[in-house]
Amino acid sequence: MAEPGRPGEDELIARYFRPLAGEGAFQLLDDAATIRPPAGRDLVLTTDALVAGVHFFPDDPPDAIGWKALAVNLSDLAAKGAEPIGFLLSLALPPDWTPDFMAGFSAGLGDCAARGGCALLGGDTVRTPGPLTLSITALGAVPPGGTVLRTGARAGDLVFVSGEIGDAALGLRLRLDPSLGARLDPAARDCLLDRYLRPRPRQALAPVLLAHANGGMDVSDGLVGDATKMARASGRGLRIDLDRAPLSDAGRALIASDPALFEVAMTGGDDYEILCAVAPARAEAFRAAAAAQSVPVAEIGVITDGPDIAFIAGGAPARFARGSFSHF
Amino acid sequence: MAEPGRPGEDELIARYFRPLAGEGAFQLLDDAATIRPPAGRDLVLTTDALVAGVHFFPDDPPDAIGWKALAVNLSDLAAKGAEPIGFLLSLALPPDWTPDFMAGFSAGLGDCAARGGCALLGGDTVRTPGPLTLSITALGAVPPGGTVLRTGARAGDLVFVSGEIGDAALGLRLRLDPSLGARLDPAARDCLLDRYLRPRPRQALAPVLLAHANGGMDVSDGLVGDATKMARASGRGLRIDLDRAPLSDAGRALIASDPALFEVAMTGGDDYEILCAVAPARAEAFRAAAAAQSVPVAEIGVITDGPDIAFIAGGAPARFARGSFSHF
Repeated sequence: MAEPGRPGEDELIARYFRPLAGEGAFQLLDDAATIRPPAGRDLVLTTDALVAGVHFFPDDPPDAIGWKALAVNLSDLAAKGAEPIGFLLSLALPPDWTPDFMAGFSAGLGDCAARGGCALLGGDTVRTPGPLTLSITALGAVPPGGTVLRTGARAGDLVFVSGEIGDAALGLRLRLDPSLGARLDPAARDCLLDRYLRPRPRQALAPVLLAHANGGMDVSDGLVGDATKMARASGRGLRIDLDRAPLSDAGRALIASDPALFEVAMTGGDDYEILCAVAPARAEAFRAAAAAQSVPVAEIGVITDGPDIAFIAGGAPARFARGSFSHF
Repeated sequence: MAEPGRPGEDELIARYFRPLAGEGAFQLLDDAATIRPPAGRDLVLTTDALVAGVHFFPDDPPDAIGWKALAVNLSDLAAKGAEPIGFLLSLALPPDWTPDFMAGFSAGLGDCAARGGCALLGGDTVRTPGPLTLSITALGAVPPGGTVLRTGARAGDLVFVSGEIGDAALGLRLRLDPSLGARLDPAARDCLLDRYLRPRPRQALAPVLLAHANGGMDVSDGLVGDATKMARASGRGLRIDLDRAPLSDAGRALIASDPALFEVAMTGGDDYEILCAVAPARAEAFRAAAAAQSVPVAEIGVITDGPDIAFIAGGAPARFARGSFSHF
């Protein structure tokens, strides 16, 4: 029900979400959307939920919250080789939501959607006595049977990871303990903070994975834990040289100030980079295709017959207190 | 993270949700599902969120919560004329969730899925410091361009509603004030309570709507409010005779004990019946097709050129304190 200064549900939808609505969303005036799926393609479907205080800080910039809610889903689609089609948003709003929040949130969501080439198809808005809770279901398209699976890695495959690992987890540390920022120049500090706030889904890698990868997933729960998941799901082992895990200059600088932060970088989560397994014979073509998309990729290890899962750091087996971050 | 006596996220998914997983869900081992959409059909997509304490009582039977979470989505699909394909579940669990709750919840969800002919395709499970929050996105299929829209009603169309109106809202009243139950025999009381707990989506009407209706929606926010929405969305007016709104014997008995409850029945929500607009020339065929599906339908009014929205009760214009229930 509308309160002074705040719109009711219909006006909220009209003001903040109708501008994001795509074809088939019927201007968000109906209870359902209708799309005509691309002929001769499979549909890839993914859902990710975010809860204030668990997956983001309630006082994060509203546009960053909106951006992240969609970005984490587009990251899943990219890892499966899928091209985004659209998304549905489920939004549970706490009693103290403000029009300013909604304006920022929808702007960030819209930016991510526009960059990702997908539109809002529908959703639901409800109230909650609890924290702001968001769930997005995103749809993408792949050629028939083409989905890149977590279970697809084969023994002997080389393991690649995109971009840089650990920046978001280090950014989260900076957020929790701002005094750490004094160890960095302001630009490096802001870079890490931004990587936590605004993950960039690696959509440009989707066609590269389709063409060359046997298996893949996005790195959302930390490189160590997610690489382990991919190997186990594929019924294999792996050997990863964490010294070859790509670090940003900012990440490297912060880790240099406290080597214990290396573990945070390798296990901390929220990277939203792509981890994939590529047959050695395809590795050169994979590298070239990634380079053509301007996405850096680093070879960090190999899938083994199994079952051993080995991470090497500083030339010795690495032992971490926790293997992966769990939002659960 | 796992706590004593409770499984961690992977085991929770394996134990409670993997048995519900359908083709393309990859046993819920991946971050995304893949489906091959039915050739030559449009996809209908809908999302509904439910929050404990807002959309259901935290102490409702867990299987009823699981049932309802999917049923309200299947009701939307039915109203659009769509045949269910599958669904994704986003689940935010509070700290005090129990294995017993999850067992009941997944059983009720699975019952509704089996009855609805659709399977779990994927989802996300997260923790929340707030109330249990569920969001389901359901997918269905319709012939190309066939989606039955809220906006499709035309002037002169007859307005039909399925089943019985008001039972769920009256069941909610009984739930809030158990002393009301003394006015009914136990079977009638249980019938109303059950209608609130376990809505039955009118899936059998989907092909009937496709064949004969110009416009339609499900009745989730009360007959009065939803009929108004359909007329307004179609750019029309309407005239509804609420004395013709179908009541169950139990509903009629409770209203007889307190005529003020008539308003509750007409505006209360949670009916999950179908409201539709049918051209007079199609009305006989519509009735026959609904009867062939064993779904009762009642003609309750007419779509007008507009813009007047008129509800008649007891032969006079009805005035209600609130036109519709809003979960927002």
